[in-house]
Parts: sequence; structure tokens; C-alpha cells
Amino acid sequence: MVMTALQPDHEAAAGILPLAAALTTPAIFRVIGGLHPRLRAVAGYHCGLADRHGVPMAARRGKMLRPALVLLAARTVGSAPERAVAGAAAVQLVHEFSLLHDDIMDSDPERRGRLAAWRVFGTSTALLAGNALLASAVTVLDGLPAAQSELTVAMSRLCWGQAEDLHTGPEPSVTHWEHLAAAKSGALLAASCRIGGILADADRSAIAELGRAGAHLGLAFQAIDDWLGIWGDPAATGKPVGTDIAARRLCLPVVFGLADPGPAAELLTELLLVESVPTLSDFAAVVAALDLSHAGESTLAYARRHAASALDCLSTLPMPSAVLAEWAELIRFLTARTA
Amino acid sequence: MVMTALQPDHEAAAGILPLAAALTTPAIFRVIGGLHPRLRAVAGYHCGLADRHGVPMAARRGKMLRPALVLLAARTVGSAPERAVAGAAAVQLVHEFSLLHDDIMDSDPERRGRLAAWRVFGTSTALLAGNALLASAVTVLDGLPAAQSELTVAMSRLCWGQAEDLHTGPEPSVTHWEHLAAAKSGALLAASCRIGGILADADRSAIAELGRAGAHLGLAFQAIDDWLGIWGDPAATGKPVGTDIAARRLCLPVVFGLADPGPAAELLTELLLVESVPTLSDFAAVVAALDLSHAGESTLAYARRHAASALDCLSTLPMPSAVLAEWAELIRFLTARTA
Repeated sequence: MVMTALQPDHEAAAGILPLAAALTTPAIFRVIGGLHPRLRAVAGYHCGLADRHGVPMAARRGKMLRPALVLLAARTVGSAPERAVAGAAAVQLVHEFSLLHDDIMDSDPERRGRLAAWRVFGTSTALLAGNALLASAVTVLDGLPAAQSELTVAMSRLCWGQAEDLHTGPEPSVTHWEHLAAAKSGALLAASCRIGGILADADRSAIAELGRAGAHLGLAFQAIDDWLGIWGDPAATGKPVGTDIAARRLCLPVVFGLADPGPAAELLTELLLVESVPTLSDFAAVVAALDLSHAGESTLAYARRHAASALDCLSTLPMPSAVLAEWAELIRFLTARTA
Repeated sequence: MVMTALQPDHEAAAGILPLAAALTTPAIFRVIGGLHPRLRAVAGYHCGLADRHGVPMAARRGKMLRPALVLLAARTVGSAPERAVAGAAAVQLVHEFSLLHDDIMDSDPERRGRLAAWRVFGTSTALLAGNALLASAVTVLDGLPAAQSELTVAMSRLCWGQAEDLHTGPEPSVTHWEHLAAAKSGALLAASCRIGGILADADRSAIAELGRAGAHLGLAFQAIDDWLGIWGDPAATGKPVGTDIAARRLCLPVVFGLADPGPAAELLTELLLVESVPTLSDFAAVVAALDLSHAGESTLAYARRHAASALDCLSTLPMPSAVLAEWAELIRFLTARTA
């Protein structure tokens, strides 16, 4: 979570996130410290642990959602979160790798309210730093083959999702969007939950249930992400609105807007089939059409439904009520997040 | 090896290479077949298994040196090469990943005599295909944690070497070049040898000896690579000469040329310190200076020395003389290669 004065309530809302940051950051520091000096500079900057000159800073870190899932999953099946720290670091490193390469591929100029790493250090160095983070993520799980295997499967699915995301898909249906979101976000979130269970020696059925919860959270997360990409506050998200629309990426509000039986669908079809580069006024018109069809509300309702399904999955697992309450808190943070 | 009419003798010279291709290619086909269709197209093209439209072809594959090392290492410690096929596929996939990303980072227009993948499919898709190959390489070794660990350590060292290679290093010494070559080429060649031993259940000391041989081969290989980058035949190597010089990459002939006590060193210093973009005539002048200092011969002699050291390491291992003869053949191929 970007720690700005705008959102103290969310920061307070999910106690597992600061714990995840506190437990995971030292491991990530160690990994980054072991990289080639040039890659260390990029990775430290990108992960929000240092400024562009390598001077440590702590305020621009990611939300640590994936590490939190690992640690909470471990706690769910009766283990101390400390036991799952390697898994937490590994999933965060994969996440950071994917953001670093995403920014290069999309030529996104900003990340977490700062210049994207490729703009500071150049494309080649940023690309290599991403590769180094990916290799390190696997190495961090050395000696933990079951967790490692989960991670690499998620990495492959992530690549699949990124490839699918590069071009507009065949049809803007919810089914297709879910297929994409399950790969792009769901795979790593589900793997995070499963890895937490694996590192805590949970039984197979508990691991499967944790994975199902994570997959639902992936859909909820991506829905919110798509919503923020249109209606979010750039000052809080750290990136401009409208980039999904401009890149004609399949996003859930547009899927809902196009499926609306009213006039919004026609307007959207017209706007989104224009081949020229979209302008700011195109974006305003798209937002107006989406608002007409209540696509934003539908998207948030979709996210809440999958968040509830995640909690339903988790409720089938025996755990102390305090841990279930932490899940509820984390899931509430996830669906109410503004960044 | 690029199979052109120019080099039938080398093709015949190392029987393990066609065997490596025959055993490894189906595994690589399977991996590539499992990728997202867009990435499958890039990876199939880049690995020389298909043309740009996805139509299968077999003539533009890599040399399969790394898979050959895996299989021969397994054979050395008494195992059938078939047992090490997953390792052979994994190291080749990492190698292909690194070439794919190298071409993007260096804006190299050609690879194996064809357009580089990024020029055919675009940078983003090529970058993602590289990531997918890297993830697959780790996945191929699922259930073989010791081999997987070797592979990921080599991947990290490869990233280190690529990062070091992006900019001219602090001093053009043989020591510094070796440090670089050990990471850039040596890590994966040593890992190939070690993985072959690991998959054949060799004892720890045999694995270490195989790794030492691989490290020597890495230095020999990189020396020849640097030589070919200046004096090679572009029709055979599939890439233009002079790119290392143009990019001011630390290459062994230049290290030897600069260390020569004669006038060549002064000339080289002058030529290589010019900040402007080097021209073809600059390159010709560099080659003339290198020839004056016999830097080419020194480079080839260096490669032969390390090839001999590799064979010395291997000779300490008990193996049938036929297998040692195969090593000698493969090493001769490596030092006499023209592509």
C-alpha cells in the first residue's frame, strides 16, 4: 500500500500487511543485496526500498498483499507465519519482476507514484533486473521443492496472462475476462495461499481450499484493479487513469458496459472500435458510457461476490476465530482498496 | 550448429551433438507447445524449430552444446543419456531465453542467419516469450530439486554476467574478462555438466569435477565466441562481425591487444576510447591493430589451454575410453568451431 495521508484507515484495517512487510522485507533486502550492483540499484528502486541513488527509503513499497496471503495461509493451518517467510519473499519477488517487465512492455511511465524503473535506468538494465528477481524468487525456495513447483507453475501462468493481455482478445465476455484474470492475477494469488499451506505442512485438502480462496481473491483483485484504472485517484494509485482503455486491454467495466442492453453498449462499441489513438476526450466519453450502464457498480459488486466466495472457502477450514477475522480484514482491505 | 554446406566436417566431428538434438528436441517441442499461442510462435521461431508462420523446420537449430554436455556428463558417470534428458532440455531452454533477451537488449538484428525474434514479433512479445522459456526451464526439472537448484544458481550468475556486459568494465584485464566469461558462459556450461552428473546420481566429488571441466569449457567457449565476433564468417555464425567492438564489450582479443607491449596497444587505446559511434573503418583499424599484436592467436591459444584443462579434469574420472573419446571429440568441436 502506498502510504499517503489519504488512506490511513486502510493501512490500519489489515494488520497482517505491516506484519508481512516487516517479515518479508529483510529477506527481499538480502536477495537484492546479492545482485550485480547495477541490478541491485534497479531492483532496490523498483521495490521501493531505495531511491534512484541507492539511498534506503521505506515509504514507497508495494502493498505486500501476496506475502500477507502466504503468511495468513500458514497461520490458518496452525503454523507461525515466520515459517513461511521464504514463500512470502518468493511471491513478492515474482510480483515485482512482473511489474518491472510490464512497465517496459507497456511503456508505462510511472509506478507507485515515481518514474518507472526503465525510465530511470534504461530498458536493458531494467529487463535484466526483472530476470534477476525472477531467478532469485526460485532460488529463495531452494530446498522447498513443493513450494518451488507451485511458484514456477504460477510464473508460467502469469506469462500466459501477460501474453493474452498484449492484444485485445477474441470476445469481450466475462468468461474470457475471467480466463485472463485467473492467469494474470489469480495464479500468483492462489499460489501464495497454497505456498503458505505447503510451507506449514498442511494436508492436501486444506492446500486445495486455500488455493480456491486465492483464486477467488485473484478475480476480486483484478476487478478492483480494472475499476481503479478508470475511476481511481492517480495520486493514490501512483499511475494515471485510462491506460487500460488506451491500450484496449480487456477490462471488466468495459465487459459489463458492452453487455448492457441499453444505449451505452452501442456507444462503447463505437468508441472502442476506433483505430486511432484515443484522446482524453475519448476516455471521458468512455467513462460517461460506462457510468450510463452502471458498469462501475457491476464491477465492484463482482469483486465483492468473489471476495465473499473466498471467505466461504476459508470458512470450511478449522481455524481460530481470530485468524478468520484477519482473513475478513485482509479481504475487506482488498475490495475497499483505493491503491 | 548452423547446418550449412560450409561445415560438414564439424557436424560429423562430434556425434554427441546430433544425439543431443535428437533426444532434447522432443522435450523442447513439448514445452513450447504448452505456451500461449503467441509465445509459442516466438519460441518456435527463435529456437529454430519453425518459421515465422509456425511451419516446422529443422535446419536452424542451435548447436545443442549444452544438452550435449548434460548427456555426456551423465554417460561419464555410467548412466544412459536418456536419463538426463530433462536436464538437457532445461539448460537449452535457459540458453534460448538468454539469447532471446540478449538480442532485445543489444538490438541485435540477426540470430542464426535469420531476423532476430524481436524484429519479427515485436519487443514485448519476444520479451515475454523469453520469460516463458525461463519459467519452463525450471518447471521441466520439477521433482528434481538438486538439478533445479543448479539451474537457478546458473540463471542468477547469467544475469550477473549480462549486467556486467552491458557496460565496459573497470579495467580490460584477463582477470576481469574471466570473471565476466565465467558468469556469462561458464555458469551454464558448468551447470550443464553438474546437472548431467546429478541426474545420473553421481557422487559429490564426480559432480564437482564435472563442474570444473564445464567451467574451463565456458572460458574456452567464450574465448572462441569473442574470436568469432571479430574474425568469424558471418555466413557461418549467422551474425555480423564487429558488434562486440561497436558495443565496447570487453572481449578477449582486445584484452590481449591492449596488454601487448608493442605499438598495437597504443593504437587500440586510441581507437577504443573514441566516444563517437565506431564506423566500419574504425573496425578495420581495430582488427589491423589486433593482428599486429597477434591477439587472435593468443585468444585461440587461450581457448585451447582451457579446453585441455577441461580434458585433464575429466581424465581423473573413471570412464570407458569410448566416453573419454567422445569428450575429446566434443571439446575439439568446441575449440575448432566456426559458428
